[in-house]
Amino acid sequence: MAHHTDEELETKEIDTRSFSSSQGQGTNVPYIHKVGVPPKQDLFKEFTRGAKETFLSDDPLRHFKGQSGSRKFILGLQAVFPILEWSQSYNLTKFRGDLIAGLTIASLCIPQDIGYAKLANLKPQYGLYSSFVPPLIYAFMGSSRDIAIGPVAVVSLLLGTLLQNEIDPTKNPAEYLRLAFTATFFAGITQVTLGFLRLGFLIDFLSHAAVVGFMAGAAITIGLQQLKGFLGITNFTKKTDIVSVMKSVFASAHHGWNWQTILIGASFLGFLLFAKYIGKKNRKLFWVPAIAPLISVVLSTIFVYITHADKEGVQIVNHIAKGINPSSVNKIYFTGENLLKGFRIGVVAGIIALTEAVAIGRTFAAMKDYQLDGNKEMVALGAMNVVGSMTSCYVATGSFSRSAVNYMAGCQTAVSNIVMSFVVFLTLEFLTPLFKYTPNAILSAVIISAVLGLIDIEAAVLIWKIDKFDFIACMGAFFGVVFASVEIGLLIAVSISFAKILLQVTRPRTAILGRIPRTKVYRNIQQYPEATKVPGVLIVRVDSAIYFSNSNYIKERILRWLTDEEELLKAAYLPKIQFLIVEMSPVTDIDTSGIRALEELHRSLQKRDVEILNKNYETMVLSMIHTSSCFFSLFLANPGQVVIDKLFASDFANSIGENKIFLTVADAVLTCAPKAVEEV
Amino acid sequence: MAHHTDEELETKEIDTRSFSSSQGQGTNVPYIHKVGVPPKQDLFKEFTRGAKETFLSDDPLRHFKGQSGSRKFILGLQAVFPILEWSQSYNLTKFRGDLIAGLTIASLCIPQDIGYAKLANLKPQYGLYSSFVPPLIYAFMGSSRDIAIGPVAVVSLLLGTLLQNEIDPTKNPAEYLRLAFTATFFAGITQVTLGFLRLGFLIDFLSHAAVVGFMAGAAITIGLQQLKGFLGITNFTKKTDIVSVMKSVFASAHHGWNWQTILIGASFLGFLLFAKYIGKKNRKLFWVPAIAPLISVVLSTIFVYITHADKEGVQIVNHIAKGINPSSVNKIYFTGENLLKGFRIGVVAGIIALTEAVAIGRTFAAMKDYQLDGNKEMVALGAMNVVGSMTSCYVATGSFSRSAVNYMAGCQTAVSNIVMSFVVFLTLEFLTPLFKYTPNAILSAVIISAVLGLIDIEAAVLIWKIDKFDFIACMGAFFGVVFASVEIGLLIAVSISFAKILLQVTRPRTAILGRIPRTKVYRNIQQYPEATKVPGVLIVRVDSAIYFSNSNYIKERILRWLTDEEELLKAAYLPKIQFLIVEMSPVTDIDTSGIRALEELHRSLQKRDVEILNKNYETMVLSMIHTSSCFFSLFLANPGQVVIDKLFASDFANSIGENKIFLTVADAVLTCAPKAVEEV
Repeated sequence: MAHHTDEELETKEIDTRSFSSSQGQGTNVPYIHKVGVPPKQDLFKEFTRGAKETFLSDDPLRHFKGQSGSRKFILGLQAVFPILEWSQSYNLTKFRGDLIAGLTIASLCIPQDIGYAKLANLKPQYGLYSSFVPPLIYAFMGSSRDIAIGPVAVVSLLLGTLLQNEIDPTKNPAEYLRLAFTATFFAGITQVTLGFLRLGFLIDFLSHAAVVGFMAGAAITIGLQQLKGFLGITNFTKKTDIVSVMKSVFASAHHGWNWQTILIGASFLGFLLFAKYIGKKNRKLFWVPAIAPLISVVLSTIFVYITHADKEGVQIVNHIAKGINPSSVNKIYFTGENLLKGFRIGVVAGIIALTEAVAIGRTFAAMKDYQLDGNKEMVALGAMNVVGSMTSCYVATGSFSRSAVNYMAGCQTAVSNIVMSFVVFLTLEFLTPLFKYTPNAILSAVIISAVLGLIDIEAAVLIWKIDKFDFIACMGAFFGVVFASVEIGLLIAVSISFAKILLQVTRPRTAILGRIPRTKVYRNIQQYPEATKVPGVLIVRVDSAIYFSNSNYIKERILRWLTDEEELLKAAYLPKIQFLIVEMSPVTDIDTSGIRALEELHRSLQKRDVEILNKNYETMVLSMIHTSSCFFSLFLANPGQVVIDKLFASDFANSIGENKIFLTVADAVLTCAPKAVEEV
Repeated sequence: MAHHTDEELETKEIDTRSFSSSQGQGTNVPYIHKVGVPPKQDLFKEFTRGAKETFLSDDPLRHFKGQSGSRKFILGLQAVFPILEWSQSYNLTKFRGDLIAGLTIASLCIPQDIGYAKLANLKPQYGLYSSFVPPLIYAFMGSSRDIAIGPVAVVSLLLGTLLQNEIDPTKNPAEYLRLAFTATFFAGITQVTLGFLRLGFLIDFLSHAAVVGFMAGAAITIGLQQLKGFLGITNFTKKTDIVSVMKSVFASAHHGWNWQTILIGASFLGFLLFAKYIGKKNRKLFWVPAIAPLISVVLSTIFVYITHADKEGVQIVNHIAKGINPSSVNKIYFTGENLLKGFRIGVVAGIIALTEAVAIGRTFAAMKDYQLDGNKEMVALGAMNVVGSMTSCYVATGSFSRSAVNYMAGCQTAVSNIVMSFVVFLTLEFLTPLFKYTPNAILSAVIISAVLGLIDIEAAVLIWKIDKFDFIACMGAFFGVVFASVEIGLLIAVSISFAKILLQVTRPRTAILGRIPRTKVYRNIQQYPEATKVPGVLIVRVDSAIYFSNSNYIKERILRWLTDEEELLKAAYLPKIQFLIVEMSPVTDIDTSGIRALEELHRSLQKRDVEILNKNYETMVLSMIHTSSCFFSLFLANPGQVVIDKLFASDFANSIGENKIFLTVADAVLTCAPKAVEEV
């Protein structure tokens, strides 16, 4: 008993709110700190707090508090255009970092852009256009310092697939292009809307695991698509699943492959992969893989120009339109059937683009430890795509590979995007004719080497280790993309993610608690095998909020624990259980169904009580002597603020007796079975 | 310091697994019980356990374990037909109870059946048919002892509304009837399937609050529909929303109302309500409201017969077909468009019928304290509707009002349903001609008085008190049904319920913990205003599993708590926070996104640490002296079994240091700020 004296003395001294029922019951029953019943909250306040936590959890208006009108205007401008804020402390040192980073990502983006445009079934210049206007807009409105903006592989593939489901890009190139701009416009609108309504948290519903699987699947699919250019196949399937593509490849094996193309492609792919390997080995040489694509393009172009390999069947880029982005405002469908199609495609592409950009932004913000307002980012990305759709760009977003290069090259601010944009501008104005003899196989090699980085096997292994359900979502997304299509993969990923949430709230865990030897701490006996059960007392912890979706399950599960335990005790001729303590620490909330379930549990226990009274009259009387005021057997330990509020509001607290609710499990055990604890 | 000595001594004595890092650090640092890392579980076992808990949570096969083959067969038969089990202990005393209860509910069900059939736009005999076959089947297969089976108001209304959306019952009565049987067939199939696949938990997704609102809305709608019969209106709208109905009523006011009808209806409604009042006042007189409807029917029929009121425009039932249920197997659509329509309607009606029956079954099972296997119930209800659809019945289920009467009349087993069924059989065979002169107004009065019981204002008030969000779901369902339609009300209820679950997992609560004076217990300082913060330490409790849907929010929220707290301390010139303890007790699970969020949190804190080191070199050095081995500032307290498993699997436990994970918050505080705790 030695180890309790202290606390008992203390609580006796200080607790002026102890229960009347336990007062004057002799020294065996300790005084116990009462469970806090928080003051009743104002309904309106409660509601606005909830709404604020949901939509304004990052408190974006905190800087505006207590400022003068003109200051508020400036702060508002700075909120929309962060460049106004950070440009004030911009200096030459920072510019040197940005210049180098900008030139590096420009050299990487030009060959990628030309290749990605093909994934979207668009002409090469549209890829370059999309690397000119959007990065400029982002530099003014975005708040990430490391992201590199432009077309990316996955979104290009997704857009290409969705668009060609609606319009054939070879038969109706003009209509196809118009639909692409329409989709881009609505992708931007979607992004702005999500950001503006502060619904950014919706993209969190695409789980990390699902994104890993989806990205890997998309990378495989994109790689397979490159077989067309890489092998020089002329008749290639429009489908993206692996079965169709492999059929297409083997069907053309005996006549369609071009050995010159394969030779050029394979040797430069080897070069690119070797450059990648060097960059990985020595992180200081990050610029080697970054400029390798441009070098490959230059070398192969010169090679084809000299050898006239294009006459031998090596497919070349041929023509890239010269000059910067023409306006495309009048090409967007604002009426008719295509408006709807564009809207639907735009929403999907916009959300996937957001997911990628926000993930990149968060990763680098965490690495450099600055805050990123996700919703503001979405507005910036959306605005950039809306403007892009009017200037002949298709959906742009943050690129994983280029952002990493940008970071490693020492970028300081979004100025690196401006530098890149300027280089693309020069390319469009003066250099496009030079790409005429660039072989398509090189672009395929560049894309293959780029998308390999999207396959993150380490992450998949980690997911397998940590959470099997996540792994199912990951593999579902992966196989869905590879064997069916990008959309199906996405659908599978989202469905599995939702199923997981619903399963969690439908079948929460429960645990039997025991006492950790010589402490007053009660823990799961499965996790702590050394923990011992208290004789005559069953302590159950419920590991979830009790809601309508699980209230019946929880009630029945607790009763089953009780039955199981009683059978065990009966078999061992041990005394029956007379007290049920429900540890409520993890029960963060309860609703009306939950309260009803507790009431039903209480009623069932009372029925059992009567039985115990009849059958084991003697033990019951004995236990009553021990426990003073404990008549019924349901005790609650540590209900939280919201739960205790509702227990009182529903009168359940009174119906089980206020003195059956304890601050800790230890207090409850001390009250209902003091002997049992002392004996340990 | 007095109140810690004991535990410190104890833990020193017993803990053989204490951390190497905290050994030999001087007497100030206590030894601490280690967090349990459960033995690695077999993947297959883990998976089967999860599946079992989801689908077989009630362990329906436990009785079969270790039984012989023939015994298993008998047990299996008994599982499908519980009557084989309970009939063995059936006796005359029980039969007396069942006989009285059966006669009482029969007298109540006959007038109700005739009225409810009208709600479903069917002829009166179909209501009676549905009270003959289904209760018989249920008596053999069902396990609830108190439920009274037959047509019910809400399902009749729902079926009528959904069916007449597809086929006009006045223009194509034959086709309409066939579709009704088809829907009934698929309602049964749906119920059997849900039960057989043990997906019964899906109906838990209709929350109690939503059901309360939906039922009340349906009651109002049904009541409004009765105005047709009650006021003797001939041209009545087909829509069920309050606006259309009231328009219809007032449009017919100047020529359509029949005062004789109103007089008869109003006087008998008054009688019924008075009988209800008597039954409520004195619970022993429960039979008064139970037989009042039949008395009203008999009296009013005699009255109309004598006065020839039907010649004055009082509408009467006219003809009810004589004889028991004809076969309807060949009327069910098994092909064509109507198959699909019937299927869709059947699924919805079947699920609503299930919800009602299971709710009733559970309520009475809890009152008499017997177990009810929800999934087995569903199979019984489904089988009964499948057979019903082949014997000219429409969807039957458990009726709230009749089950309550059944219970109060002292029913013992499902034999009361057999008795009722027999009475209905006699009625169909011999008594139907007697109903010829029964005025429709009486049936309307019977229905109005019956559905009034579905409006549970007390429950709504309680919901308002307990959970405002539930109240919104309740009101959404109510107004949806009243102002739009039954389907829309249902849709609103389900959507709000889902939104609630998603919101919970997206924006979980977090709380700052403080120490309850003179204990080692740390609790939410909002709930326990007397709790005090530990200087230099921020203790945050996360109140939810950390999943992809909330991991970013939780990370950012914790960092915001930290920033807010630091600002407060700065303003008060108090020492900075150097330790962050995250209390993980309510964190029941974590997934890969959650682990990533913790890693990012850890990285951000390390960055802060460096800053603190630079800025406040002196205090840092001082605190290092105090805290021995505490370099980085993230501590975790009491992660559960699953969480600790994943922390180790992901290597996060090692990256923050295993000795930063504690059994309790008190242990963590004791390690990182022993002085602070001593000073209290």
